[in-house]
Amino acid sequence: MSDKARIGWIGTGVMGSAMAGHLLAAGYPLTIYSRTKSKCQSLLENGASWAACPAEVGEASDIVFSIVGYPKDVEEVTIGGRGCLAGLKEGGIICDMTTSSPALARRIAEEAAKQGHFALDAPVTGGDVGAREARLSIFVGGERAAYEKALPCLEAMGKKILHCGDAGAGQYAKLANQVAIAGVMFSVCESLLFAQEAGIDVAKWRDLVGSGAAGSAAMNTLGVRLLGQDYEPGFFVDHFIKDLGLCLEECRRMGLVLPGVELAEELYRSVQARGEGRKGTQILVKVLAELSGKTWNSHP
Amino acid sequence: MSDKARIGWIGTGVMGSAMAGHLLAAGYPLTIYSRTKSKCQSLLENGASWAACPAEVGEASDIVFSIVGYPKDVEEVTIGGRGCLAGLKEGGIICDMTTSSPALARRIAEEAAKQGHFALDAPVTGGDVGAREARLSIFVGGERAAYEKALPCLEAMGKKILHCGDAGAGQYAKLANQVAIAGVMFSVCESLLFAQEAGIDVAKWRDLVGSGAAGSAAMNTLGVRLLGQDYEPGFFVDHFIKDLGLCLEECRRMGLVLPGVELAEELYRSVQARGEGRKGTQILVKVLAELSGKTWNSHP
Repeated sequence: MSDKARIGWIGTGVMGSAMAGHLLAAGYPLTIYSRTKSKCQSLLENGASWAACPAEVGEASDIVFSIVGYPKDVEEVTIGGRGCLAGLKEGGIICDMTTSSPALARRIAEEAAKQGHFALDAPVTGGDVGAREARLSIFVGGERAAYEKALPCLEAMGKKILHCGDAGAGQYAKLANQVAIAGVMFSVCESLLFAQEAGIDVAKWRDLVGSGAAGSAAMNTLGVRLLGQDYEPGFFVDHFIKDLGLCLEECRRMGLVLPGVELAEELYRSVQARGEGRKGTQILVKVLAELSGKTWNSHP
Repeated sequence: MSDKARIGWIGTGVMGSAMAGHLLAAGYPLTIYSRTKSKCQSLLENGASWAACPAEVGEASDIVFSIVGYPKDVEEVTIGGRGCLAGLKEGGIICDMTTSSPALARRIAEEAAKQGHFALDAPVTGGDVGAREARLSIFVGGERAAYEKALPCLEAMGKKILHCGDAGAGQYAKLANQVAIAGVMFSVCESLLFAQEAGIDVAKWRDLVGSGAAGSAAMNTLGVRLLGQDYEPGFFVDHFIKDLGLCLEECRRMGLVLPGVELAEELYRSVQARGEGRKGTQILVKVLAELSGKTWNSHP
């Protein structure tokens, strides 16, 4: 018997599989559930146990992590009828790592508290590469005592871990990160398009600007991809629209108007409406070009 | 007698004084003119000669550099009646380093060519610190032969120098840089404001996000200043509005719609209308907050 906490894991998409794999590699006993069992094959072969539903994951675990799709999925696998909360023993911890609604995170924490449990919201940034290399940044909301219990697990998945405050604070911090992304997407896509239309050498220009006052991480990653017309997803348009929708929902609740985020959400919905929701967020440049009857076609 | 090119300099604001100083220090004979002679005192004491007008600067020089305020000032000191072009000897070079209109840059190059001269447009980025430390980035448009003649002088002022193409291309490259800045200003100001309103620790949040996928140079410079409510200008709102206006003028000419730049120009004009044109561009956060009846008040 291991003296390590028994870990439950719900959701084994690209991110979740890699993250759960780090816990398994660190020696934690792991019980997993996913809507699509086939996605769990590698984890099961490496020693994880299968559970038939989230509640069964709860029964077998001291701490349950989840990383699923949308807030309704989070709700279902945590506080839903067969959610993991229903199975947890007294003093258990739910730690949802999905980018989801701060209001829902608070509701989960309240439900958990009523039953003598704890809930953390702990969304991440760093994408599939960060998940694979255990280099995620993790924003955590919830009670400090629960945070400290979950911390060794979070440290197995991430490089920078920030306790941001009470329940919901992790989600707020992640949404603020997405607000910052919205602006840099304008920055990268509009400036490259302007440079192309002005007839200058876009690749040389990007190279110089990327390290200056107008530079950004996105200019040096997505900007480079755009030079090769590479629209493969580092981050899906569909997911970004979900996140921007959550940002705007919270803005409305807080009575805050953010014109840049409003505009970004509108343009990304246009990208999605054109059937490109499964492309990477950098594809914004193509829709911006087409807004003016232009074509994005710069070469490296 | 020095065998170095005789240099003329027009415009001795914060940027121009520092840049001209590097040429003087490098041993170039320097003739200067500025609207306000008192601003030239230090250069004159260090060996520069005074000229009574731009045409006289031209008479005394092989290459004339200018860095003044607005396109109308550029026009006046170059191709105006008493502009430096009127004084130059055959084969002279005008190199305007003001951020100005690409169309005007082309017009100056045409006028110069008619009279057997050459014109370069060579706007810079890097601000007053970059100017002082000779670490500017310089975007150059114009004929390659003239560029190569001016290059040793440019290298005395800057670290990264990019020949972007024909006359006007330097201005286009600089304007594309300003397009990129517009987006990162949304990124920094809206995300910090969202974080503040959500009640999370903005300083810790900024620190983590600054080095991630949502990070930018501005997040790590202006973002830090904003934590201390420091609105002192790295770059004046008034100057940014001039630049965004030039961007939009060129967008109209090219038939290009850039919604992010349009929105930025509108909001910055609002900043200006409230009497804060002489503050730094990061003051956008204050106007965004006030849009929703909030106050930006985060502390470090």
